[in-house]
Amino acid sequence: MNTNDTVLLADIGNTYFHIYDGDAVEHLAYDDAIDTYQNQKLYYITVKHQLSSKIEHIPLWTNISSHIKIKGEYETMGVDRKALCLSHRDGLFVDAGSAITVDVVEQGVYKGGFILPGLKGYMQTYKNISTVLDTNLDKEVNIEELPTTTKEQISYGIIASIKALIDKHSKGKKLYFTGGDGKFLSAYFKDAIYDEKLVFDGMQKVIGNK
Amino acid sequence: MNTNDTVLLADIGNTYFHIYDGDAVEHLAYDDAIDTYQNQKLYYITVKHQLSSKIEHIPLWTNISSHIKIKGEYETMGVDRKALCLSHRDGLFVDAGSAITVDVVEQGVYKGGFILPGLKGYMQTYKNISTVLDTNLDKEVNIEELPTTTKEQISYGIIASIKALIDKHSKGKKLYFTGGDGKFLSAYFKDAIYDEKLVFDGMQKVIGNK
Repeated sequence: MNTNDTVLLADIGNTYFHIYDGDAVEHLAYDDAIDTYQNQKLYYITVKHQLSSKIEHIPLWTNISSHIKIKGEYETMGVDRKALCLSHRDGLFVDAGSAITVDVVEQGVYKGGFILPGLKGYMQTYKNISTVLDTNLDKEVNIEELPTTTKEQISYGIIASIKALIDKHSKGKKLYFTGGDGKFLSAYFKDAIYDEKLVFDGMQKVIGNK
Repeated sequence: MNTNDTVLLADIGNTYFHIYDGDAVEHLAYDDAIDTYQNQKLYYITVKHQLSSKIEHIPLWTNISSHIKIKGEYETMGVDRKALCLSHRDGLFVDAGSAITVDVVEQGVYKGGFILPGLKGYMQTYKNISTVLDTNLDKEVNIEELPTTTKEQISYGIIASIKALIDKHSKGKKLYFTGGDGKFLSAYFKDAIYDEKLVFDGMQKVIGNK
């Protein structure tokens, strides 16, 4: 494989089809992505195995999932997480999408991580517990002091618990955020980097090395 | 009101009817509780307003929810949380049921808190995100180091994020746990007290003061 501007990269997630053309990232519904790009050369990784029958026959598309490997990886580790962890040799990597994955990489070796629900998932969960807890995320909630309204106490619970656990593991590490809620969450951390292209950077390294 | 051994106390929650006879706490389905105890004198608090029509006509039962007050409380604060916060003048109070509420009380004044999903709610949320994340809570997960399997990374995410945020607020405070998952969670904290009677202790203080 060689890379040039005409080769698209795609990261097929649980909710969206993310496509990178070397310049910007586009987030599409599965069918829209297939309709729009099936006649262009494209390398993809996918965690959406139910989609295989729809895309594996497209001649210009190549599934490179099996080539995405990182030292220390575990057997069922999502290929998008592996690509994300390949983007830099050292750091703490947060992908905040339908789930929030947090991974630690040291000198190119995967050291472990954890998985939290995505922000939407959290909100749906409160709603399922009780109508009293059915509210919207307060994206302006002050996490410097304990709140005293239901909406703020829920928003604080979500954001401050995610932040507290990331803080615990981020000592001395660079923090990299990606994913739909990555920009929002990264604002709660000093010197955190938000970059929606991280997964594609990881893919590109693998393609470049082949 | 006066208290004696024949008066039952009940805390009607989102999932169960909790009844205390001065000795032990029983957790019953709503209808079972009504069938079994409708002919005994009982003081109750309730967050399950949908149940009102079924119980407010029972002559021996008295709803004392409106008497449960704590300085600093907020308007929509659940009555069970207020009763819990009345059980001791100082402390951090965790009620781990269908939701996990965490509250701070200093010198009898409510200082604020936060609300997290209950353990079951968390697990259901992962399942809804992806079949890949449909697993059981690993109740033996080691929270001293980052794990490298999906099941452990989910279990770690839940338990360690709850713990990290409670730790942040527990400096110098006594930790009190109650609720169905209270005993399990309390084991992750040094010197934490688990007591399933805390809400009833708070109720009893109010009844005693009347």
